Order: sequence, then C-alpha cells, then structure tokens
Amino acid sequence: MKVTLKDIATRTGYSINTVSHALSGKTDISPLTREEICRVADEMGYIRNTAASGLRSGRSRTIALILPDVANPNFIIMFRGIEAFFRQKSYTVFVLNTDENKEIELDAIRAALAQNADGIILCPTADDEANLALLKSTGVPFCLIGRRADDADYVICDDALGGYLAATHLFDAGHRQLAYFNGEGRISAASERLEGIRRAHKERQIPLDDDHVLSLSVKTDGSNRARIRRFFETHHEVTALIAFSDLLAFEAISVLEEMGRTVPAALSVVGFDNICSDFSFSPALSSISVSKKTMATAAAELLWSKINGKAEQSAQIVLPTKLIERRTVKNM
Amino acid sequence: MKVTLKDIATRTGYSINTVSHALSGKTDISPLTREEICRVADEMGYIRNTAASGLRSGRSRTIALILPDVANPNFIIMFRGIEAFFRQKSYTVFVLNTDENKEIELDAIRAALAQNADGIILCPTADDEANLALLKSTGVPFCLIGRRADDADYVICDDALGGYLAATHLFDAGHRQLAYFNGEGRISAASERLEGIRRAHKERQIPLDDDHVLSLSVKTDGSNRARIRRFFETHHEVTALIAFSDLLAFEAISVLEEMGRTVPAALSVVGFDNICSDFSFSPALSSISVSKKTMATAAAELLWSKINGKAEQSAQIVLPTKLIERRTVKNM
Repeated sequence: MKVTLKDIATRTGYSINTVSHALSGKTDISPLTREEICRVADEMGYIRNTAASGLRSGRSRTIALILPDVANPNFIIMFRGIEAFFRQKSYTVFVLNTDENKEIELDAIRAALAQNADGIILCPTADDEANLALLKSTGVPFCLIGRRADDADYVICDDALGGYLAATHLFDAGHRQLAYFNGEGRISAASERLEGIRRAHKERQIPLDDDHVLSLSVKTDGSNRARIRRFFETHHEVTALIAFSDLLAFEAISVLEEMGRTVPAALSVVGFDNICSDFSFSPALSSISVSKKTMATAAAELLWSKINGKAEQSAQIVLPTKLIERRTVKNM
Repeated sequence: MKVTLKDIATRTGYSINTVSHALSGKTDISPLTREEICRVADEMGYIRNTAASGLRSGRSRTIALILPDVANPNFIIMFRGIEAFFRQKSYTVFVLNTDENKEIELDAIRAALAQNADGIILCPTADDEANLALLKSTGVPFCLIGRRADDADYVICDDALGGYLAATHLFDAGHRQLAYFNGEGRISAASERLEGIRRAHKERQIPLDDDHVLSLSVKTDGSNRARIRRFFETHHEVTALIAFSDLLAFEAISVLEEMGRTVPAALSVVGFDNICSDFSFSPALSSISVSKKTMATAAAELLWSKINGKAEQSAQIVLPTKLIERRTVKNM
C-alpha cells in the first residue's frame, strides 16, 4: 500500500535516482524538477521513511524523552516545554515511560537507541548507574532533567534551596512541628530537599523529629493512602506538612478530607512542583516552583547544542527555586 | 562508539554473517554458538538497531500512541493500560502529542510511520478526516480510542448513555436547572454526551436552557476560567453542573472557590472520566466512568490482532459507562 520511489518515478517519468535526489533535497536536480516531483509525491501520499533515511543521513529528526511517571502533571508540563522547543526545529519528541523501574528504564533507553533518536532527555530513576553508563557508552547525545547523576550533564533546580524555603515559610507562619513526606531518598531531588529542610531547622534551632520524615512512593497510584492516614492518626502534634510533590500533597489533603479535617484549618501544606500554574486543582496549593518550563527549555537547548556538536565540555545547570504562596498555609 | 557486528565478529572469531544470524535468532546457527555470541554482544553493550532490522523484517516492535492532550490524566491512565498490554509482548509504546491540533496530528502520524511503528492507536482530534484517510491509505494497522470516526475501527464508551446517567442522577437528587460544560461539539464524545443529556431532559419533561450549554476548550491550559466565572456570575438559577471531563469539573470548582462558593453546597457537580479512581484530588468528584482501563486493553487487543492479521473485517466497540457517586452532588 505504501507509495514507493518507484511509483513516483513511474508517475513522473523521472528515474528513481532523480526522484530520490529530489525528495532528499539534493541540489543536483533543477528547482523546477524538484518542485514537480515533491508535489506529485505529496499528492500520492508519499511518506518519507526517516528511519531508513536516518540510517543513511544519521538523523531521524526525533528526540526521545524518558520519564519516570507520565501520570505526574509536573513531567507533562516539562514534556510540553521540550516539545515546543523541538517543534520549531521540525523535530518530533516521543515519550517513553519507566514507571520508576530501572529494568523498564533500560528497555526504554534501548528502544530510543533502536529508533535512532538523535538525542535523549532522561529523568533517571533511582540506582540506575548501569543504565546511565550504557547510555553514555553509545555516544548518543543525552542529558538528564530534574534529577542529577555525578557523571552526566543535567538541568535540575536547586532542590536544597526549595526545601529550605518551604520550611522557613512555615516557621515564619508560626509552625514548629513540621512533617516531611519525602520521595525515595535515593532520588537526588528527595535527599537534597530534605537537606534544605534540615538546614532551616538547624538555623532556627527547631528540632526535626525523625518520625516526621516519611519516605513514600512517588508513583501516582494511591498506594500511600493507608500510611498517610496512620501517620495523621498518630501525630496530632504536627501542624504543617511539606510534600515532595504537589501530587503527594493532594493525596495527603484527600486523606485528611476523608478523616473530616480540612486544609489549611487542620494542617498547613506546602507542595513541590507548582502544578497549579497549569492545572485548576483545589485547594489552590502553596508550592515550591521548580521552574519546570525554564528547565524544559534549558534541557532542550543543551541537548540541541550537543546534537549539533556545539556543547561545552560539560553542562550541569542548577536553576533557582521559589515559593509560590496560595491558600494552604495558615498563620498559627 | 556504537558496538557493531564487526566488533562482535572480531571478538568472537566468527564471521559477521554468523554473528548477524545468531543475533537475529536464525536457526541455522548451533544453539551453543548462538548463546556465546549473544553473551559477548551483551557484554560489549551491543544495541540491536530495530529501525534497521525493522526495515528488513518488517517489525520494529514499537507502537505509536497519538493523544490529543498528554496533560489529561484520563489519557495517561489509558496509556498505562496500553503500555502494560504491549510490555507483555515485548513491544515498546511511544507517545506523541497533538495538542488537539490537526496539523500537529498530521506531523505525529507521519513521525509514527517514519519510525516504522508496527501499529498506531489514535485518539483523533476534531475535523481530521484527511489525516485519517492518509493513515488508512498506508495500510499500517491502527485503531481509534475514545472518539469515533465513521470509517475506522475504534473502541469508545457509550457517551450518550453517560450523559443520560449524569443528568438523571442530578434530577433524582432534585435538581431542575442543569448546566453542561461541553467540549467542542465536533468531537464525537462531546456531541454524544450532549445527546444523552437532552434525552434525559425530554424523558423527565424538564426543559434544557440552551444558554446553559457551553462549548469550552478541552485543553488543560486554564483558558476557560474567565468564561466560567462570567457564566456563574450571570446564572444563579443553575444548581447543578455536568462537565465534559473531570479536569473541566475541577476547573469549574476552582473558579467557584475563588468566588467564595463551595461544592456541593453552592453547586452539585458530575464530571466525566473518573480520574479519581487513580488520582487523589479533592473534592472527591462524582463522575461518569468511561471504563478507560477496559478501553485501553480492548484497543491494545484489537490493534494486536490487526498487526497479526487476525482482526475481523471491522471492529467498532462501544463499552458501557456508569456513574461513580462520590461527594460533589447534594440533594435539593
């Protein structure tokens, strides 16, 4: 069913070679002939096989974006930023999901390589050094987004500053007993946000109760509800919560609602990711903005310069974070 | 940097031809030799180029999923269902985004074809007959999900029934003045849900005020807020709302909250998509379940049978919808 070069040659009366040169934009064909051949090819519904031509030219004009959880709006906002950048370069971005699982991440990396992606942007899952080493060994341009690894180029935000800002904001509102619902500690963003929260406690000489730091699943699958409920049932001293992500914050708010407690009356909450910039969820959540749009553009630009052989020796970019005040923090 | 067949031949001492046959699983090589070559290839970090081998074998072991709005959790839940199905077949699913724009949809279809996707699952945007005709002309197996078109195979839910169920539920709770925030009418799901809402009104002999039916953007970009606010400011007679999607319902709830009105005290709300099955958003939203997980599996199975040449002449599958009662509907 597919229209071939031969079909176009038959229709136009030119040789297959001429048709091929015309369609691949070579300049040894007269502009008029090229235009005619391209017009007929379009009319016939010809699809240029970029996988095949990519093998020859070395370019598939595709970018693979490998994300740990496509269900998290935070990553989707990044995706839209990266896509907008590459659309202007006539590149297509395709997304692969790893579900925070390093075996699936390896499959995704292999699929991206097998599809001849010209470049890869990856938000790495925990403990995936072997995957990153493999990716590095291929020589395909790549960079990390949102989470760092020592040996790779990345664009992240200042997670430690974010944790610090969230905690001091709650201290300024009069809270002293904070809880932190963290992601898995092996994710760089998780350990660094906790570090910032600890620093704020130290500065204000307020102790942080280790029992108040929970390590929860960062996947959006509702699996944390039971632990969150148990925590709130047994820790009535806590008046404020910092959550590793806005989704986790909403999960906590939903559990509290189920227990008949409302936010911020019963508990003040600060999330991370500022997804309310793009989504109308309620309550309007105070959150640390991780500059995800800037991050998306910076990662896209970094990858683009690497694809075109213009990148610096190494690029490790840390963007500032800031607090967005909405309605989930109450003064004590 | 990439490991080639030649590298593996040099390392193992076998010919390039033998290495190639071993790695592609041909049976003219002894099992022991094949095992040895595959082991060495793995150790060397060899990546099989499926784009290249796809050109020969006709299989790339990839599926393209083309979605109108990756930011909508509804589609992401479908994605996860489709991915789970194809992971069991050792296929990779990659996602392309159309932003509800038919030009971008055309680019996405072309990219999927160019990447030699073995099959395509598409949730079509409005007015894209030409794109569907192109896709059909290529002979690549595909099916639609979530929205129908006359001339294609699809898996959708009974949208008219869903609209009917939402309206009768609100009538049973004593509401008489309903509003419907619809998507664009040219989307099949939008027109069919409205049809069901109209049927329910007719059956109960309750008039539906045309001013109460708004056609809003189905993109998650906050662009509807001003219109929604104006509507609520000028239509105090409305006591209940049906929204085309849960995201649109949450947008309306967030605007109401900004106006100092709470749900369900000030307004009862029923959404569509039942995203609260997977996401902990508040308030817990009453919603029409569109059986998206069943839909995902059905579409994946349909596509799989088409890829393997086992599909029926045509398959147009309509799944039932049902009402999930949560906390956003108040009895009058």
